Amino acid sequence: MRIIGIDPGTAIMGWGIIDGDGSDLTMVAYGAFTTPAKQPLPDRLVSIYNDLAHVLAHYRPNVAAVEELFFAKNVTTAMAVSHARGVALLALRQAKLPIFEYKPLSVKQAVVGYGNADKQQMQHLVQMTLDLDHIPKPDDAADALAVAMCHAYAAPYLNRIQEDS
Amino acid sequence: MRIIGIDPGTAIMGWGIIDGDGSDLTMVAYGAFTTPAKQPLPDRLVSIYNDLAHVLAHYRPNVAAVEELFFAKNVTTAMAVSHARGVALLALRQAKLPIFEYKPLSVKQAVVGYGNADKQQMQHLVQMTLDLDHIPKPDDAADALAVAMCHAYAAPYLNRIQEDS
Repeated sequence: MRIIGIDPGTAIMGWGIIDGDGSDLTMVAYGAFTTPAKQPLPDRLVSIYNDLAHVLAHYRPNVAAVEELFFAKNVTTAMAVSHARGVALLALRQAKLPIFEYKPLSVKQAVVGYGNADKQQMQHLVQMTLDLDHIPKPDDAADALAVAMCHAYAAPYLNRIQEDS
Repeated sequence: MRIIGIDPGTAIMGWGIIDGDGSDLTMVAYGAFTTPAKQPLPDRLVSIYNDLAHVLAHYRPNVAAVEELFFAKNVTTAMAVSHARGVALLALRQAKLPIFEYKPLSVKQAVVGYGNADKQQMQHLVQMTLDLDHIPKPDDAADALAVAMCHAYAAPYLNRIQEDS
């Protein structure tokens, strides 16, 4: 199973691709799509869409894991990121990928073992688990790899539920 | 000038196309893209994207006017609509259209003459101005025509500003 994880954002959208099921995981590639703040939003969305489509065509993942947004307060930020997240979901589904969504809390619980882990702890676990020389940069790419790992851990149980039902 | 107006939404996205500049306006077509609530969000986004691309290819507008979102309270709704709005902006820009964004208040001021006009007053003005037999349905289509009208009224001034600068 090849999983692409996505950490949505307008200025920076992190992506990370891993191979494996359960706990046997290998990093394939990671990075971030960036768009300048001064660029009009429609142009930034086209750029994100094209960049993601290019990554999907190149690495051909089988499944996508996308972080859910959690914004208690800032509606403006929530709306900006949602524009970009909508475009990412579109590109993923146009590539025929099944898409799973995970809350930030679930990602931390799956990767570190508890939901109130800090960013450093999570990045450290991503580095260790994927046997990387260094912590992936930018942070958004590390977060995207964590979302992909979360799905790798969850997938065996999801399959079992589907088989049971 | 052929203008497409868009009233963004996930369950219903209104669209309306008019021809004309200034106050000499003709309705070309209008409608709404609908997606069922039970459908997964990525599938709904693909559906909206394909439907809008189809309308753009068929009617070939020169310019787009898209309503800005205004949500003081409900972050969940704001995020859902923003996913769909992002996909709409993507499709419009991929079709090489200049995109103008208008706040709901600006649309009411331009179409009715004052910002606290109610929905019925605005629909009535849309019907009268475009010389229609009846009020366009659903409401989202009437709103989309109003956004297009707003741009038709604003465009001469926008051009003048650009020439001055």
